[in-house]
Formats: sequence, C-alpha cells, structure tokens
Amino acid sequence: MGKWLAGIDIGGTTVKLSIINELGNIKTKWEIPTNVTESGKYIVTDIARSLLEKLEELGIEKADIRGVGIGAPGFIDVERGLIFEAVNLGWKDFPLKEEMEKELQLPTFVDNDANIAAIGEMWKGAGEGSVNLLCVTLGTGVGGGIIAGGEVIHGESGMAGEIGHITSVIEGGAPCNCGKKGCLETVASATGISRLGLEAIKKNPTGILQSIYEKNGSLSSKDVFDAFKENDPLAEEVVNESFKHLGFALANLANAINPKTIVIGGGVSKAGDVLVNKIIGFFKEYAIPKIAQETTIRLATLGNDAGVYGAAWLAKERTK
Amino acid sequence: MGKWLAGIDIGGTTVKLSIINELGNIKTKWEIPTNVTESGKYIVTDIARSLLEKLEELGIEKADIRGVGIGAPGFIDVERGLIFEAVNLGWKDFPLKEEMEKELQLPTFVDNDANIAAIGEMWKGAGEGSVNLLCVTLGTGVGGGIIAGGEVIHGESGMAGEIGHITSVIEGGAPCNCGKKGCLETVASATGISRLGLEAIKKNPTGILQSIYEKNGSLSSKDVFDAFKENDPLAEEVVNESFKHLGFALANLANAINPKTIVIGGGVSKAGDVLVNKIIGFFKEYAIPKIAQETTIRLATLGNDAGVYGAAWLAKERTK
Repeated sequence: MGKWLAGIDIGGTTVKLSIINELGNIKTKWEIPTNVTESGKYIVTDIARSLLEKLEELGIEKADIRGVGIGAPGFIDVERGLIFEAVNLGWKDFPLKEEMEKELQLPTFVDNDANIAAIGEMWKGAGEGSVNLLCVTLGTGVGGGIIAGGEVIHGESGMAGEIGHITSVIEGGAPCNCGKKGCLETVASATGISRLGLEAIKKNPTGILQSIYEKNGSLSSKDVFDAFKENDPLAEEVVNESFKHLGFALANLANAINPKTIVIGGGVSKAGDVLVNKIIGFFKEYAIPKIAQETTIRLATLGNDAGVYGAAWLAKERTK
Repeated sequence: MGKWLAGIDIGGTTVKLSIINELGNIKTKWEIPTNVTESGKYIVTDIARSLLEKLEELGIEKADIRGVGIGAPGFIDVERGLIFEAVNLGWKDFPLKEEMEKELQLPTFVDNDANIAAIGEMWKGAGEGSVNLLCVTLGTGVGGGIIAGGEVIHGESGMAGEIGHITSVIEGGAPCNCGKKGCLETVASATGISRLGLEAIKKNPTGILQSIYEKNGSLSSKDVFDAFKENDPLAEEVVNESFKHLGFALANLANAINPKTIVIGGGVSKAGDVLVNKIIGFFKEYAIPKIAQETTIRLATLGNDAGVYGAAWLAKERTK
C-alpha cells in the first residue's frame, strides 16, 4: 500500500491539488485553473495530467499513491462518486469517481466541498480530535458540514449539512435563492450582512456605514465589520442582528447533535475573535445549559487548505 | 450464535421485556413492575430472574439468546453501558451493562430509551427501511432520536437527539426545566399544549375550552385536540401555535440532517392524521423546497413496543 495520498479540491476558478502523507503532513500543494469550457469535459484530464507530472517531478511512483480524494461543489452521490449537478463547473450527472479512476487507475473517493472542508478541520485544523464536529462557512453564501462519530452526515439525498438554509428569521425574512424565506444565509453570509447594512442606513443614514456608502456607492460585509470595530452604533446593530440569527441556528443544531466543537470558517470569519465572542454570546442564550458549557466555538485554522486535507483524509480512510 | 434476541425497555413504572427473532418477529412480550426502592438496586436482578423464568417456560436455552438489548431513561455512556443519571430509577453512575452481564452472562448493549424507540420504528415501524430517520415523541415532555446512515447519533456527551430543547420560541418563550426559555417542549408537549390552552382562555374565556375548564377545573392537551376536532376557534389557535413551532423545529432539523422519514410518536400523536397534516403544512413552510418535497412525515406505528424492538435490534447489530 502506497504511503502517499492525493487530496484535490475542485472549485469554480481553480483546482487545488496536494500530496499529503498518512499523518496529514503536506509534501506539496499547487493549483491549476479550472477549465469550465465545454461543460467541464477537460477538468478530469487536466487534474490527472497535472498530478502525474507532479509525481514525476517529485520522483514518487504512482504505485506509492494509496488513493485519491476529491472535493467538488454541488449535490453528490457519495457512494457512486457521481455529481448530480455542479452548475459552476458545467457538470450534470457527471461520474467523477469513474472518470478519474479511468484516467489514473487509482482508487478515488468523492465528497462535497463543504464536507471535505469540515473533515479537513477535524483532521488537522480547529476541530482536531473532535469526532463530533459542526463546520460552518460564512462566505458569499453559508455552507456547512456535520460530522458525527467521525463520519460526515450525508442524509437521504446528500443534502445534509445545508446549514445556510436553516430558517432563522421566522417572520418577515428575506427571500433566499433556495426558494424559501428567512434562511440563515440571508442574514449571516457576506451578502446578507451587506444587505442588512444597506437596510440599516436606508432607515437611519448616519455614521461610518453611511459615509462609506456615500464614498463607494456600495457597502461590503468587511465595511460593516470594520465600522463595528470602530464602535459605530449602526454597524453594531447590524452585527448583532446577523449574529443573533447565527447563534440561534448553531445553538439549535448543537442542541440536536451535541458536537464537541463548532468551527467557523469562510471570508466573514476573517473578522476574527471579536466575531467569535459575539457568536458565543448568542449561542449561550439558545443552547441547553450543558451544551452551552461544553461546546467549543472557534475559528477555522486551515483556510483554503481545509479542502485538500479533507480530501486526503477521505482517500486514507476509504482505503483502510 | 443463538437465534433469539432479548429486547428490554426500562421505564419508571414498568419494565417491558420481549423475546424477538432476528427478523424482528416478537415471540413473546411481558411486563414486570420497576422496583425503584433502595436506589433501584433490585431492577437488574428482577429483570434477569424474569427473563430466565420466561426462557424456561418457553423451553429456550440461554445459549440460544444471541444478545440482550436494553433501553433506559437518562443520560448514558453508550460505549460502557453506564447510566450517568436516571432520576426516575434512582440510578447514578450505574454500570447497567456490566451488572446485567454479571447476572446473565450474555452480551448486553444499552442505549437511551428515546434512541431505542427511534431504532424500533426504523426496524419494524413507521420508519421501516429509512436509515436516515428523525423520531420525535410528544408526551409529557418532547423527546427524540436521530438516526443517520442506520446509526443513532449520540453526540459528544450522549445528549444528541434532545429535540425537545430546540429553541423554537425566539422571543418571550416560557421557561423550561432545562434552564433556558422557549424550548419546543414548552409548546409542543402535552404539558405545553395544556398551558397554551389555559393562556388562551385567560385572554379570551369563550368556546369549548372555557366550558371544559369551568367543568373540570383543568384543561388537558386531549381536551384541546377534541375541541379542535369540533372546530372550536380558540382550540384551533392553540393547535396552530403549537404545531407552527413543531413544524419549524422539525423543518430546521430536516434542513440540516436530511432524513428520509420523520416519525411522530407519544401520547399527543394519538390526535391522529389531522395532526400530521397540520404539522406537514408548517413543515413545508420552513423546509428547503427539495427537503419539503422528499421528506415523509408519519405517525409512529409501534406504540409502547417501539422500545423493545429497538433494544432487540441493538443486540442483533452489536453481536454481528
């Protein structure tokens, strides 16, 4: 059995690749552009070629690769390694596992990108050692992964972990892309925080937020957090509104699945510890006292590498 | 390996026992009183003696029992079969698995009563064939069990599945025994529905609910449902209020764990299909459209037998 693992994370713009050993130490990592032309038909061959070139460069035999783990966006049939649909890549009913195994003749294992990021944080990141882990990614949208007893929960049709579509605004919530209203994503994503900021200055055009808006004609979630750190009252209102909903959703998930650790990643998490402390405050309000006391909430530590770590872990575990 | 399984469900008043075959057919079931005197020290020997007597009566050799599964109330360390605390039974840090194995010399496996009920419904009840299952029990309190990929989710300290303590009333919720406010249990348990009914007639002393209250000096959840079925407007308000919160909590759980089936059991579920339809209505409002479409919600079918089925399943699976 080979001693190396290939961990691959396919995104809409770049594919991240890595060679990782069984202890989770990265030997090397690199990126290639994602070629989404012609319904993404070149992606698999691009990955395979780049991986084989890298192995040659490193003087590693293909036989020394124990397995290939891949994270991909979209809805996935994990058993078959089939991507039902990944709009960003142009894939529909795409047999990723089968195609990659045909190219590489190496056992290949596939999961959703949010799930492998959660696995990565469990293996080598902020959740290290937590086999019961909840991962939430606050980016343009809100994604997530739930790990119970060391295994990702996929649910009946691979939709488990869709934390962003928990309803957290019960009455009068904003419409969400998913078709319903008041989803966590509408208030806790970068987009959602920016929207709440714009709504706030519409009602009350004062302070730092209004100045930024007048200057730039727009207002980002980073603007809101920067203003919050400068004690702008309106920015604080917006952050409280957003994180109250986030704390509520995370507490209710924790009440139901009792994780050891909740890891918060994604662009919004760059706001740092001040943000984590806010979330913890609201979390404690809605969590069962014992859960509130025992659950650790912390920032993700692997950043963009979480995916390749998680993908490599998948290759390691599934080839045991 | 023996062909029979012993399934045992320990409650505060009675212990339910059964002999079940590997296909899940009950050969016989019976009950004995739960002797809670002297911190429940006689419970294990009572169970062992009753089981051995029954085996003799049936002409089954002890060697033909493949394993013993037991459900018990309270917080449990499932690995060790240790009951941290079961207030009803007087047990504290009670090594149930160890004690029972000493008495019977048969492999014994223990889980929480709500979890074995969920397993029972998965094996032989309303969730038959659903390896992704959410079970909620609406009784004096609200309990639950979550099964993902055929296995119960226990969480970091055995508290997973505490569906009754999901916060579903965000603002101004009633205090709950668990120490926080607005728990699902405060509005969807028999006790909670009765409380909502009393609050409703306090504000608006009219209709059937008020008549019952004047006659009996009390108002049960059954009274509320009976009045609802007779189209009493106030009772309908109460039922809507209660089930809106239940639908909300179940939808958010389903958004996160994507079960195939949600099974509703417990005394309150005796209100029947009219109740299920109400819940489905609210569920669809808060669930991701694909989840709303694909998740089945139905009444539990095993009633009080769910526990012994689930306990027997535990014995079957753990002795594989």
